[in-house]
Amino acid sequence: MRNFDFYSPTRVFFGKGRHEQIGEIIKEYGFRKILLHYGGGSIKRTGLYDVVTKALKNSGIDYVELGGVRPNPVLSLVKKGIELCREEKIELVLAVGGGSVIDSAKLIAVGTMNDCDPWLIVTKEVTPKAALPVGTILTLSATGSETSSSAVITNEELKLKRGYGSDFNRPLFSILNPELTFTVPPYQTACGIVDIMMHTLERYMTQKGEVDITDRIAEAVLKSTIRAGRIVMENPYDYDARATIMWAGSISHNDLTGAGRDYFMITHQLQHEISGMFEIVAHGAGRAVVFPAWLKYTYKQNLSRVCQYAVRVWNCEMDFENPEKTALSGIEETEKYFKSLGMPLTLGELGIGEESIKEMAAKCTNYGTRLLPGFMRYEEKELEEIYRLCL
Amino acid sequence: MRNFDFYSPTRVFFGKGRHEQIGEIIKEYGFRKILLHYGGGSIKRTGLYDVVTKALKNSGIDYVELGGVRPNPVLSLVKKGIELCREEKIELVLAVGGGSVIDSAKLIAVGTMNDCDPWLIVTKEVTPKAALPVGTILTLSATGSETSSSAVITNEELKLKRGYGSDFNRPLFSILNPELTFTVPPYQTACGIVDIMMHTLERYMTQKGEVDITDRIAEAVLKSTIRAGRIVMENPYDYDARATIMWAGSISHNDLTGAGRDYFMITHQLQHEISGMFEIVAHGAGRAVVFPAWLKYTYKQNLSRVCQYAVRVWNCEMDFENPEKTALSGIEETEKYFKSLGMPLTLGELGIGEESIKEMAAKCTNYGTRLLPGFMRYEEKELEEIYRLCL
Repeated sequence: MRNFDFYSPTRVFFGKGRHEQIGEIIKEYGFRKILLHYGGGSIKRTGLYDVVTKALKNSGIDYVELGGVRPNPVLSLVKKGIELCREEKIELVLAVGGGSVIDSAKLIAVGTMNDCDPWLIVTKEVTPKAALPVGTILTLSATGSETSSSAVITNEELKLKRGYGSDFNRPLFSILNPELTFTVPPYQTACGIVDIMMHTLERYMTQKGEVDITDRIAEAVLKSTIRAGRIVMENPYDYDARATIMWAGSISHNDLTGAGRDYFMITHQLQHEISGMFEIVAHGAGRAVVFPAWLKYTYKQNLSRVCQYAVRVWNCEMDFENPEKTALSGIEETEKYFKSLGMPLTLGELGIGEESIKEMAAKCTNYGTRLLPGFMRYEEKELEEIYRLCL
Repeated sequence: MRNFDFYSPTRVFFGKGRHEQIGEIIKEYGFRKILLHYGGGSIKRTGLYDVVTKALKNSGIDYVELGGVRPNPVLSLVKKGIELCREEKIELVLAVGGGSVIDSAKLIAVGTMNDCDPWLIVTKEVTPKAALPVGTILTLSATGSETSSSAVITNEELKLKRGYGSDFNRPLFSILNPELTFTVPPYQTACGIVDIMMHTLERYMTQKGEVDITDRIAEAVLKSTIRAGRIVMENPYDYDARATIMWAGSISHNDLTGAGRDYFMITHQLQHEISGMFEIVAHGAGRAVVFPAWLKYTYKQNLSRVCQYAVRVWNCEMDFENPEKTALSGIEETEKYFKSLGMPLTLGELGIGEESIKEMAAKCTNYGTRLLPGFMRYEEKELEEIYRLCL
């Protein structure tokens, strides 16, 4: 087991009706003026906006609004948020929405308290010294941003999308009410499930060393997510299944599923370049395409681990004479499952052809991550081959 | 899944050599004067004391010492600690030891900042308003106090041992170096393993409601702990196995393994009364006696759950024609395992006879917990019968 730090201080309020307590919760912390940050208005359609603002008013919490966060949250809105927070002397940023809203809130919160271009915090040229606290009311199970230390922001001027990590990014509290995800459409639900599985698998599919407890916890998160995913595809209003997916989202990216293990980003990076060139591709959908291809390319590098994955996560029978068959059946089960969720399995289904591969592979190695870890080391040639397996 | 709060803010520094960083860590937080709290001197014999004090000196951290914590930490030493902290303007209490030292440190930390008899905090007559931060260097995997919200203190004058929970009890940081547990003797190691399993099972063995993800995480913690326990009994210097047990101890009692479930205390309470009357009985040993007996008494109340335990934790084969057989084989495996660790299975082995049962059962229902939950409800009669199954 490798040495590790574990720090997940976010206070989670989980369950039915918990978002109605938002006023009391903020009051309990002693904050009196907040920024209410949200997306394109779906929280108004669902009535969540009314419930939240009413609860704030009832507890005497003063709020300033900033809506309009889009998927792939942008720097310009973050800057607007920072200005607002400074002018209005905001004490807490409350994100009501999914990962994009939360990520936007995180950079507003840290940007407000540091006197520099917030983009320099994203690019790690400035180390932040303080941040406003962030609270969240989650409406989409996917990114794990409600407990994670990371945020991803797009700089529209530079046409760059970048993630960064900081303990200041850990929300002070997160309200997780699975009922708020009942109305998430099947495609977005499926993308979220894939994202959650990937956060776990990016920690699980790493080389070397026994970490029995972390392996088994990761398998527990995967198995329960897979099962719950099947249920919500049949019945989107199944509370326990929605709850399982929501909690899995939060613990799949708060570092628990990677304790004592490496964290490799190769499949993340491969998908990042797909969405980078083809903005319409949802993060989860891109990952559903990339992960099985990567595993097909690389499984021989750590056959026993891929067999463990096949046997323990997918209940494949171990073929002791031909372990490769077991590994391949695990990959096949993964693909079948993604397909059953309505996810694409090929670049073709995303409208991406052979001609884009060279560029995506080159970009993958662009950011000083020329050698990306994960079972083996990859250069452009290997990355191209993996993309080809996605065709 | 039931509504729940989850809050585990302790920063964990896990791994080899981490305790050598204690000076830097405290300095990073900005504290300059601490109370160094420890037990009966074993940290001096092992050399840990020298490493810690040297690291503190090297980082310019001023420290005042208070040793002498015994198993079942006592109120009188806590009061001494509070006086010291106030006189010396201590900024952080550093506990170097096992659960007893940490529990003592917790009450010193909260007692210092509240102007009342600290016993009133334990009895919940006073709600604390603040606390000094607590840091820990753990030397024994067992109680989970290094991340938990609970502490247990004995009032020698009143001859009462009482536990209480408070978010102020969550340590600011905990340093977990599995190497520091290499020299823990087999019997204490085994008691710790049982304690860790029980923290998980007290959440797992509850009635009602599907909480698939929490179940599977609990099973993951149990399976890896059981496996690691077998390894350390053979080789106490196996790092990965010691690491598994240490991490299992921390997450088995930080509420993760109970998320969305009830927490029942019946077996805890049954053992509590054994140690209460027979102080020599180690907590883990008493639990090894009580748990299988309780399960034998009650398994028919929730047969499917005990079967799940047998199949998933102990790899028993499900007997679909006779599920009771499966449940009983799970109980048998539990007993066999405890025995293999050198744990007692009967009150007789602890030197306790039939004549004490009535008194223990009566005490069990003494503290306003006349009806103790856990599969069913228990009054004195039922508790006596369970004790009788321990004979």
